[in-house]
Amino acid sequence: MPGFKTIGVIAKRRDARAGATLRELRALLRGDQRTLRVESATAEHYRLRGVRAVELQALAQSCDLVIVAGGDGTLLEAGRALAPAGVPILGINQGRLGFMVDIKPEDMRTSLREILKGRFVREQRLLLSATIQRGKRRRGPFLAVNDVVLRNQAAVRMLEFETWYGRQFISRHRADGIIVSSPTGSTAYALSGGGPVLHPALDALSLVPICPHTLSDRPIVIGCGQPVRIVLAGAESVRAMCTADGQVNEELRPGDTVEIRRARETLTLIHPANHDFFNTLRNKLNWGKGPDRA
Amino acid sequence: MPGFKTIGVIAKRRDARAGATLRELRALLRGDQRTLRVESATAEHYRLRGVRAVELQALAQSCDLVIVAGGDGTLLEAGRALAPAGVPILGINQGRLGFMVDIKPEDMRTSLREILKGRFVREQRLLLSATIQRGKRRRGPFLAVNDVVLRNQAAVRMLEFETWYGRQFISRHRADGIIVSSPTGSTAYALSGGGPVLHPALDALSLVPICPHTLSDRPIVIGCGQPVRIVLAGAESVRAMCTADGQVNEELRPGDTVEIRRARETLTLIHPANHDFFNTLRNKLNWGKGPDRA
Amino acid sequence: MPGFKTIGVIAKRRDARAGATLRELRALLRGDQRTLRVESATAEHYRLRGVRAVELQALAQSCDLVIVAGGDGTLLEAGRALAPAGVPILGINQGRLGFMVDIKPEDMRTSLREILKGRFVREQRLLLSATIQRGKRRRGPFLAVNDVVLRNQAAVRMLEFETWYGRQFISRHRADGIIVSSPTGSTAYALSGGGPVLHPALDALSLVPICPHTLSDRPIVIGCGQPVRIVLAGAESVRAMCTADGQVNEELRPGDTVEIRRARETLTLIHPANHDFFNTLRNKLNWGKGPDRA
Amino acid sequence: MPGFKTIGVIAKRRDARAGATLRELRALLRGDQRTLRVESATAEHYRLRGVRAVELQALAQSCDLVIVAGGDGTLLEAGRALAPAGVPILGINQGRLGFMVDIKPEDMRTSLREILKGRFVREQRLLLSATIQRGKRRRGPFLAVNDVVLRNQAAVRMLEFETWYGRQFISRHRADGIIVSSPTGSTAYALSGGGPVLHPALDALSLVPICPHTLSDRPIVIGCGQPVRIVLAGAESVRAMCTADGQVNEELRPGDTVEIRRARETLTLIHPANHDFFNTLRNKLNWGKGPDRA
Repeated sequence: MPGFKTIGVIAKRRDARAGATLRELRALLRGDQRTLRVESATAEHYRLRGVRAVELQALAQSCDLVIVAGGDGTLLEAGRALAPAGVPILGINQGRLGFMVDIKPEDMRTSLREILKGRFVREQRLLLSATIQRGKRRRGPFLAVNDVVLRNQAAVRMLEFETWYGRQFISRHRADGIIVSSPTGSTAYALSGGGPVLHPALDALSLVPICPHTLSDRPIVIGCGQPVRIVLAGAESVRAMCTADGQVNEELRPGDTVEIRRARETLTLIHPANHDFFNTLRNKLNWGKGPDRA
Repeated sequence: MPGFKTIGVIAKRRDARAGATLRELRALLRGDQRTLRVESATAEHYRLRGVRAVELQALAQSCDLVIVAGGDGTLLEAGRALAPAGVPILGINQGRLGFMVDIKPEDMRTSLREILKGRFVREQRLLLSATIQRGKRRRGPFLAVNDVVLRNQAAVRMLEFETWYGRQFISRHRADGIIVSSPTGSTAYALSGGGPVLHPALDALSLVPICPHTLSDRPIVIGCGQPVRIVLAGAESVRAMCTADGQVNEELRPGDTVEIRRARETLTLIHPANHDFFNTLRNKLNWGKGPDRA
Repeated sequence: MPGFKTIGVIAKRRDARAGATLRELRALLRGDQRTLRVESATAEHYRLRGVRAVELQALAQSCDLVIVAGGDGTLLEAGRALAPAGVPILGINQGRLGFMVDIKPEDMRTSLREILKGRFVREQRLLLSATIQRGKRRRGPFLAVNDVVLRNQAAVRMLEFETWYGRQFISRHRADGIIVSSPTGSTAYALSGGGPVLHPALDALSLVPICPHTLSDRPIVIGCGQPVRIVLAGAESVRAMCTADGQVNEELRPGDTVEIRRARETLTLIHPANHDFFNTLRNKLNWGKGPDRA
Repeated sequence: MPGFKTIGVIAKRRDARAGATLRELRALLRGDQRTLRVESATAEHYRLRGVRAVELQALAQSCDLVIVAGGDGTLLEAGRALAPAGVPILGINQGRLGFMVDIKPEDMRTSLREILKGRFVREQRLLLSATIQRGKRRRGPFLAVNDVVLRNQAAVRMLEFETWYGRQFISRHRADGIIVSSPTGSTAYALSGGGPVLHPALDALSLVPICPHTLSDRPIVIGCGQPVRIVLAGAESVRAMCTADGQVNEELRPGDTVEIRRARETLTLIHPANHDFFNTLRNKLNWGKGPDRA
């Protein structure tokens, strides 16, 4: 039996389809003589009996593949937790096709069988690592799969902040905020903010200002060789938020510096052998279906 | 003596230049035999003696012109307070040239003399009136010179909301929020959000989604004949902010409806006789300086 | 028998579906005792026998409704020809739903019956009228339903040109060109250029620069009270194109002035009684399908 | 005497300032015992006597530095001609500061002295190489410093074309055209088309659709590991233009394939030791002047 022997499973909670997928997965893996581990919160939520429930962090230690049944949100959370241990992740989407959860529930049985036979694509995605410096105090590092975002609060006026690339000053911005996005995140929030799509294999980040006051303040794509630093400016009373993947939130004050660099860890994704980034892109962005001649 | 006899003055606080402008104004109007009223918070802040200090609201009753020395922010606040009484406003900018505060301090003496002699342009700007409905409870109406904005909080995911034009459903949006902008506001926050410039004489509003999830969710310009309604959707726990001119804030919950219509009141602005909207626009947006042949 | 008695028909050529629609229309109108006139090029192309073929221009004189079976392109051409005579137009789309050709072939029978019974919506759309001045020589006026576009040629560098609103100078631009769009055209080429959607009832135009060199050169929406003028600048050898609805082309030289104003004529569109602009917009732009509560 | 011994000079023609710079350069280099070669068209245009005039191509063979006095346009032309031989280029701007011609005439004397002493920054910029395939016939390769652009003609409707990344189909587009830009070109035409700024050290290209019909057709940034191919589609009669740096033009027909890859050659730029990409960017895009604390 090649490939993955101990397989962990995480499912989105409060989602009937994720629950069904979970039960189907259990049957499928049992029949295939694989060892199954279920993330403890998932097991409890869906009241699964007769399975070995394991804490999220421990899952990383004991499994050589983790299957995530949910949306991109579920995968973001799992990715941040599992990437440090290097466990590959396979995403099964519930509802809308995601960029990372690219197996449809109805294809799961077939796709999974192929993958377990060793026919799959292994892809490395870079992760972001962010730390926040306030005087001598340091918070983090926080991992992010998609993006690290600096943003104002709804009731707060425009922020002022500086951006740096290593020791080079980039600019002083007046905006609602800024998105520092990985290639993976470039099709998420950064795209809504007007940023470009970055091919997932690029070793680069995009800096996308949010509603900039200066109309020529445009998205910039830079290599990962140097860290990006964002320094919050403005009056003493200003407060801003620093958010990783829209899930981890830290309050910022003027003078605080957010430093973002490529993390040493990467996220390993497992895809079906016919995986095609541009095909997913066309689907998600409602582009035309295929080449004329295909 | 033609024109304005009783003149009120409001100045931006904590601004050395506004203070200097204030004192110069006092001397200038005294010499011209005009009656001067100073807004009480301004008088107190700059410790002006020997002037008649009057509450902001009362200023509207007793003056036939109010001069605002400050930035667009100061004028927005004054505009909302004074518009209901119909008092015309003249803006003197401190620092950057504004769209409404279009007299430079160094030109003040000359410009003001001309205006007091009756040589000026009077311009009507439409105002927005917003009310918030939650079940049977109604908040508002709130006046806005620039815009009414529905927005998420930094730590909150994307909002879902519907827009309506009178009884016509426009769309269901997934975005950080939406800006409903007057022509006056079209060169402010709405422009940063990707909205068009609306000529100030247009009887129209723009609806500008903020970082929309759907990439084809684009700014729409509509007439003022029907009210615009925004209905917040989403899970029970979602909270959003409704803001008028970035200065008045109201919390929103799912089901809350914000209704925005053209206010019955208008804002009357007084400009020097040579006032030119496009000239200000070119200056503010760093466009080329003038026609080749001029 | 209320309403339209003599009905003209124009169909897109080289389109099997348009031909089928044409024959179905003929049967339908005959059975309903209406007088049918077929545009002569249409009649010839589809070799229709036993119908009265009439030149496009004459169609306008003899009919009180003209049905156009085709796409928005066919309707643009028909609209420019028929609008001066004031004949209302009804569009039946072949293929993709259009903004003006909003009856699907499969709904034609039902929709047409309702419309012939007098249950319909009549809508007026403003038209643009463009003239080109070179010294004392004047070309035009050219009518346009959607837009008048000034553009460079592929092998030509960026154009330089000035825009004026009546006697007011707007700006000097360096760009590939500029789109002056009616509300009807705002969902066509102007939208691709980054312009806003204008509600069809607005008495306004949008000016949308194409790939402007100055990043702050943004779309402007202005009222129809004054004509817009565009003056081509640049070296003697520069050539540009002025195009109405992408169908009428005139070459421009430096110094040439294109003047665009609202035409005296309007385009009258007939829609089914349940016509809804925003519904078409949602469909065309792939927005969400409808309100949650509907 | 360290560094560059034989120095070539190219100047923009019909430019009084370029002529003055040229004469100043001659005096300066003579005084410094360097051997001077002047590009023959430059020498003839400015009627320089007593200098050794050399053809552009030969200049590359005999010089170890070429100074270009002009704008980015002059440098693009020189770059394409000189890059294959690997000669480094130093740009002195006449008029507006350029991204590549970053020495001001008034700083020339000082900057050049420093550079000739060996105090400078050497920067490699990637070049694009394009070939056009029609059946078995192949045109090119054409070099481009900035971009390769596929575009329609003014009088031609929207183009349809496919894009490929190596063997992967990207999408089928309906647009005015597409810009394939190097990092160097990302601040030129691609920026006007809505593309991101790419840091000059990135080994990546951007694909920027021009006025795309599909609103979600957004700029994509991809690595240089695979060639990009663009296949023109559409009716037999369609014609399009393929342009390198806005200077080399080739006509395209349906079925023609433009293949763009990173050229084997690179462009070597010499900058003053204090050269700073972001500083130039801030200047060109009218951003704020510098960090608060600097």
